[in-house]
Amino acid sequence: MTNQSRSADAALRARAARVVPGGVYGHVSAALMSAGTPQFFARAKGARVWDADGREYIDYSCAYGPNLLGYGDPRVEAAAERQGRLGDTMTGPSPVYVELAEKFVSMVTHADWVMFAKNGTDVTTAALAVARAHTGRRRVLVAAGSYHGTAPWCSPVTTGILADDRAHRRTYTYNDVESLERAVAEAGSDLAAIFVTPFKHDVFTDQELPRPEYARRCRALCDKTGALLVVDDIRGGFRLARDCSWSLVDVQPDLSCWSKAIANGYPISALLGAEKFRDAASHIFFTGSFWFSAVPMAAALATLEIVASTRYLEHTVALGNALREGLHERAVAHGLGLSQTGPVQMPLILFEGDPDLRLGVAFCGAMIQRGIYFHPWHNMFLCSAMTESDIERTLAAADDAFAEIARIRMTLRPHEGIAALMASMSAAS
Amino acid sequence: MTNQSRSADAALRARAARVVPGGVYGHVSAALMSAGTPQFFARAKGARVWDADGREYIDYSCAYGPNLLGYGDPRVEAAAERQGRLGDTMTGPSPVYVELAEKFVSMVTHADWVMFAKNGTDVTTAALAVARAHTGRRRVLVAAGSYHGTAPWCSPVTTGILADDRAHRRTYTYNDVESLERAVAEAGSDLAAIFVTPFKHDVFTDQELPRPEYARRCRALCDKTGALLVVDDIRGGFRLARDCSWSLVDVQPDLSCWSKAIANGYPISALLGAEKFRDAASHIFFTGSFWFSAVPMAAALATLEIVASTRYLEHTVALGNALREGLHERAVAHGLGLSQTGPVQMPLILFEGDPDLRLGVAFCGAMIQRGIYFHPWHNMFLCSAMTESDIERTLAAADDAFAEIARIRMTLRPHEGIAALMASMSAAS
Repeated sequence: MTNQSRSADAALRARAARVVPGGVYGHVSAALMSAGTPQFFARAKGARVWDADGREYIDYSCAYGPNLLGYGDPRVEAAAERQGRLGDTMTGPSPVYVELAEKFVSMVTHADWVMFAKNGTDVTTAALAVARAHTGRRRVLVAAGSYHGTAPWCSPVTTGILADDRAHRRTYTYNDVESLERAVAEAGSDLAAIFVTPFKHDVFTDQELPRPEYARRCRALCDKTGALLVVDDIRGGFRLARDCSWSLVDVQPDLSCWSKAIANGYPISALLGAEKFRDAASHIFFTGSFWFSAVPMAAALATLEIVASTRYLEHTVALGNALREGLHERAVAHGLGLSQTGPVQMPLILFEGDPDLRLGVAFCGAMIQRGIYFHPWHNMFLCSAMTESDIERTLAAADDAFAEIARIRMTLRPHEGIAALMASMSAAS
Repeated sequence: MTNQSRSADAALRARAARVVPGGVYGHVSAALMSAGTPQFFARAKGARVWDADGREYIDYSCAYGPNLLGYGDPRVEAAAERQGRLGDTMTGPSPVYVELAEKFVSMVTHADWVMFAKNGTDVTTAALAVARAHTGRRRVLVAAGSYHGTAPWCSPVTTGILADDRAHRRTYTYNDVESLERAVAEAGSDLAAIFVTPFKHDVFTDQELPRPEYARRCRALCDKTGALLVVDDIRGGFRLARDCSWSLVDVQPDLSCWSKAIANGYPISALLGAEKFRDAASHIFFTGSFWFSAVPMAAALATLEIVASTRYLEHTVALGNALREGLHERAVAHGLGLSQTGPVQMPLILFEGDPDLRLGVAFCGAMIQRGIYFHPWHNMFLCSAMTESDIERTLAAADDAFAEIARIRMTLRPHEGIAALMASMSAAS
């Protein structure tokens, strides 16, 4: 794909670079993907996005999670538009705040209450404050490499952040009971909380489902010490279950954090908790200019109703299974070994013998050239608007893309930006 | 106003109390206002809100700032709807990201670049990270009592927050050059940033416009020490000027923080900065699930175009002057002394000899009974959808309300919730 054939995207990048530091920042930056990856999107509908040059893609990033049911799902849009005609950001909440809170609490087994905010980081940081307020203790344990947001206490990159901001944060190894027990013992009587992601979905590395004995040990250690168990379900929520994701391993947390998919793309996040922690939650300082906006709440209520009443999840899992099996067969046929990990509806696809990801970056670049938006190092997402025919098109493209990279693999070089990010994150963890 | 006549509001409050800690949290909680204040709003349009029981109010809270041009301004809504049909939260930014960035930077004198987020707190916290990354220093100075958001480093209430989170934060007195100089000297070689609000708009207390010598001294001390001057224009942005608010005192900051009114109610915030700090800004970790959503950016672009091309500001100031003068005359006629402070378009109305705010709470309660939503201790906001006839209606209601509280003033008692909040904030500052 030459620059000429992507003239609109290239022109927008050049303009962005003048007025935004780095042009496009954060997780959506195409600088950390193959050279032919589009940076800007003009349109989205269902399972598809169109770039600024009008090219269509089946989108396996799903806005990095918010797109659960398909972009512009008509049921969610109708609810949002109905509320929008009444009011959005007003001088207090609308009645939909109460309806959404009741619905959410009714769906999540461990939860007796909920509080809404905007960002995932708002609610992980609030969860930590609730844990500290409830226990009067300071120490927080997180799995090394796990992502809990951008706040100073959890950011994966520490530029501009102080040692004091992270003074009471320690790490253990996900799924490793012994390392968890060591970290708990080392915390002594100062342990406030253990944070877990529902499965290990760190960037750059194979995903891991939680081992049941690890999940149960997290619960038991919190019960023993009085610390709070927090499931950060921001990325996985409603993509694995219609309840907190750890309901799948039969472990109930004290608090859970939600965002991304809960309003199918509208901006909202939520902290849910058990009765015991209601008092602490009512005493932390927790508010924001747009946290009571009614339109995202109406969209979330419609999304939760669809989650509760349709087979969106089973459909998505069936497609994910077909994708995983189909990719495996085609990769093997081209002499390539894939490591496909995590839940099939949130797949991460790495290549065997590819520590610097050069094969993966080239493969995703070849897929993008063929109209399939694949990501080389962040878990991908399927949405329920995808169809069997989308999977077939994807597998046909993958067959070509595997052939291409098998042919050129000896000419590939590592991606400098990715190497730099891996190094800075490794330094921060 | 009896409970019976507000049955919908009361029923919603009871339901909310079961599923949300404290029922309704944060700055929109009606628990800290007079007993007859509605908590829930069913509808908003122009300068008006309607509560859950169908009562109409002229709304002087303006969603606590986001409503700049009137709720549901048709020009902003048309731009948002147009973008919504294309796409909102997608796998990358839309072209409107670039258009908005260019427009914003062109309007703000000190700024060469911008980065977008969701909450005001996102960008005040990022401003601090940029200052620390650029200088390699830690100390941050804020005016005692000033509000910069909910993050641990700046939250006005410290429940669940650690001493370490605020280890390098010190306070000085707004408008007091000597106290500022003392704080700068005490920081020695470790000063990273001085934060200022465009004027003193703390809750519970008279507002103050910035003294020019104070503003100039902030700039000079930053120039001398290499620390960054940050104007937190989240509450005041575009309500005082069509540029950063300190353009009014002819002082240019290094960074400025914006949110609330910049998209007339759609959720977005922005950090703007000078060229010198672009490199540091490009190295902090700064991203969020909904930070690239296109609809709020389209709404912001439409808002900025209206700000740049209409007389919304002069109109709002004229109404604010009429309101202030009219309230003064009527209060005096009833033997009451008002302290009306701050810019007329962001008025705070306190009563003389009313340290615990009992008169103010009663007055605002009486106004609310008469269909005028007034706030007793947070600055209010006028929007450009208000008319001269709205001001006349407001003044007529005030005449009645002043008469009522002059009659019952000896029977008034302090508000317990307000007293408790004042105490906890005073402990945190």
